[in-house]
Amino acid sequence: MKNIRLDLAYDGTNFSGWQIQKNSQTIEEELQKALKAININFDKILSSGRTDAGVHANQHTTNFLTTSKIPAEKIALALNTKLPDDVRALKSFEVDHDFHSRYSALGKYYSYYIDLKEISNPIKRKYSWHFPYSLDLKKVNYAADFLSGKHDYINFRSSGSDVKTTIREVFIIKPEFLDNTLKLNFVGNGFLYNMVRILTGTIIQYGNGIISTERLNTVFNKKDRTLSGITAPAKGLFLEKALYSPKEKDQLLEHLKSKTS
Amino acid sequence: MKNIRLDLAYDGTNFSGWQIQKNSQTIEEELQKALKAININFDKILSSGRTDAGVHANQHTTNFLTTSKIPAEKIALALNTKLPDDVRALKSFEVDHDFHSRYSALGKYYSYYIDLKEISNPIKRKYSWHFPYSLDLKKVNYAADFLSGKHDYINFRSSGSDVKTTIREVFIIKPEFLDNTLKLNFVGNGFLYNMVRILTGTIIQYGNGIISTERLNTVFNKKDRTLSGITAPAKGLFLEKALYSPKEKDQLLEHLKSKTS
Repeated sequence: MKNIRLDLAYDGTNFSGWQIQKNSQTIEEELQKALKAININFDKILSSGRTDAGVHANQHTTNFLTTSKIPAEKIALALNTKLPDDVRALKSFEVDHDFHSRYSALGKYYSYYIDLKEISNPIKRKYSWHFPYSLDLKKVNYAADFLSGKHDYINFRSSGSDVKTTIREVFIIKPEFLDNTLKLNFVGNGFLYNMVRILTGTIIQYGNGIISTERLNTVFNKKDRTLSGITAPAKGLFLEKALYSPKEKDQLLEHLKSKTS
Repeated sequence: MKNIRLDLAYDGTNFSGWQIQKNSQTIEEELQKALKAININFDKILSSGRTDAGVHANQHTTNFLTTSKIPAEKIALALNTKLPDDVRALKSFEVDHDFHSRYSALGKYYSYYIDLKEISNPIKRKYSWHFPYSLDLKKVNYAADFLSGKHDYINFRSSGSDVKTTIREVFIIKPEFLDNTLKLNFVGNGFLYNMVRILTGTIIQYGNGIISTERLNTVFNKKDRTLSGITAPAKGLFLEKALYSPKEKDQLLEHLKSKTS
């Protein structure tokens, strides 16, 4: 029995998210079908997390146990002959038996793209939130700093998730401006359901003036979902990667800190 | 009667190109329908050129005559309420009566994107040519230089076009490497049918070693379509803009020359 780590990238536009569900096209189902088509047995596919409908991934880590004799490294290339072209297997390799794509993760890295141009860019329409309204960049930076740290993020989750605690540590929220696009980088030890999208909605609504400084400053003080902002659209969100080593995490944080915003 | 210049951007994926044709979705038809829907009369829409099926545009200039009283500047925003979201009107304004989006152009700027990663990026799959094979960057630069200039580009066109002369001047072909993507920038006084895609195919096949230096060096010597390379796929091609003033042209060439490759 081998434990195989498999990393995927996908365009989430035409999927109802990661997790298998009836009468919907999901990435997990496509992966299961492709594994079966290349005769790789597996019991259950473990995943670093679930992405929602319309959310994209640059590197989504999964793992599964198999008795297949196919060399672990060959699995990704074989899968790509069966997967639809909006899902790609990036890499596959054998890992220790105790590796669990979800529980072994020290944190996650997400990014969110906002198209700031007055007229939306048609090429980016499925990969960004078009926000052509006024945005105070100082406020964006202030909110990004204010909303990171170790907090009870209970006002930054949608219902429908059951978790033991709503305390999370967000190591960094780093805004980057690139050619009329605002990219928000989020790294944390974990994120609640829709948390990145609500953080994004809050940062943008604060930058736009809809949310006052007074309101923002009380957002962690009491349980009240109306203190935080709207849930930004799924299509701007990218799961960048899950982090499995302190070195990987430190290097990413250093890299993001070095960027000018 | 006013002459209106209207610039568009579009994702060409779901279109059979610019020009109206029966039983196909085209950008020209979408624009005609949208103009009618906002009650702007016009006789004929003139265009800086035609894009093929699957080709994208960041700025495609058109113009038309109208007696409509709607302020010229408002037309673009009004059109965006009627156009599908893969076509956007960027800007509209009144121009001199002798402005003709095709005949007034001093040149055209196209770009072509090649995804060099071993595994294709799903997000770029409709906006680049995936070429995960070996590519000698020195050869790419050599071919880019060699193929620019004033030449008879008869070996760089597909049949189906009727033109007086096949001599064109390509002011610059500038390769840029950006994060596992090769972007080829082309500026010329005009391009034959499929010329940018055949230039791209030739540069890439030379960089990959399929085309020898000897073969490349004879490509302008006699009429023989087999001397040049394949026609690169439509989906990697972007019409960047048509150039209407010497200043605009000079600034663009300066800008491209200043990039390191």
